[in-house]
Amino acid sequence: MKAYKKADFPVDKIRRFLEPGPIVLVSSAWRGESNIMTMGWHMVMEFEPSLIGCYIWDENHSFELIKRSKECVINIPTVDLASVVVGVGNSTGAEIDKFATFKLTPVRGARVEAPLIKECYANFECKLVDLSLIRKYSLFILEVVKARAAISPRYPRTLHYRGDGVFMVSGRHLNLRRKFKPENL
Amino acid sequence: MKAYKKADFPVDKIRRFLEPGPIVLVSSAWRGESNIMTMGWHMVMEFEPSLIGCYIWDENHSFELIKRSKECVINIPTVDLASVVVGVGNSTGAEIDKFATFKLTPVRGARVEAPLIKECYANFECKLVDLSLIRKYSLFILEVVKARAAISPRYPRTLHYRGDGVFMVSGRHLNLRRKFKPENL
Repeated sequence: MKAYKKADFPVDKIRRFLEPGPIVLVSSAWRGESNIMTMGWHMVMEFEPSLIGCYIWDENHSFELIKRSKECVINIPTVDLASVVVGVGNSTGAEIDKFATFKLTPVRGARVEAPLIKECYANFECKLVDLSLIRKYSLFILEVVKARAAISPRYPRTLHYRGDGVFMVSGRHLNLRRKFKPENL
Repeated sequence: MKAYKKADFPVDKIRRFLEPGPIVLVSSAWRGESNIMTMGWHMVMEFEPSLIGCYIWDENHSFELIKRSKECVINIPTVDLASVVVGVGNSTGAEIDKFATFKLTPVRGARVEAPLIKECYANFECKLVDLSLIRKYSLFILEVVKARAAISPRYPRTLHYRGDGVFMVSGRHLNLRRKFKPENL
């Protein structure tokens, strides 16, 4: 699998990767057990602090791991990992070790115990900062406390789920910067 | 501008268009005034009811219109409307009539007073069903109560914002349906 050369990335600028809506892999760990889940429902909620809202279904094995450890890592896979994304989503950490099964490499994080996934384009270490919306909406409010992203390519080929087994792959880019008022960028 | 031929669309399947993370235009109306805003921070939160979480900044002119009317329409623009998307985001409804300025056609909705935008690929009429997260997170929980979408093309060329004036345009599609467990589609 592809190995990206990565560098630290400003946490208040990770919207660049998450706002376009990619499917992500969320890794977590609790008491010696680690797991990975595929997640499509998330949104940027703030720059500073860098807040992300994530829907995590309580039937997911990762639900308890993240709720108890109050940590996780949001990893951004690229199109070459499409089969892994589907495989991770199809299986449960209650039965298998997903790192081993899908030949993904866990990497130690700087700020969280949860492992980063080496093969992903970017890794955002997150702390669970608000648990109050979990019961009603399965909504986890995460703060990105440390980010690393590949140096190249500038824009990764990400997967965007449409339901029914269909992914949109990110396409070309349109730079309309000159048309924006600076305060609206 | 492009005129799409549209048909009713099941509200519990609109994830197909919103989950990949497109920038959207939100239209609203209150006491004879209507407005449009550009929005990039949103997420699918449930199929049935069809819930969408949206971040709407309290400095936006639309904030009060949506909060008071408890309604809005999420409209999905395609790449041909890129300049309109930027223009709508650059301007404020406190100063101009955005429908007139950007030559957009308001269309009467079936379930809400807020106008639909004819030139968009899809229109989702929404009711504001939970106001309790607005103060803390500027988070509006909307229920899509009626949806219409273009019959063709099957997958619209949507815009996905990366910040800094750059949009990703939706690319090709990858159908991995045969690899999914049916319950995970």
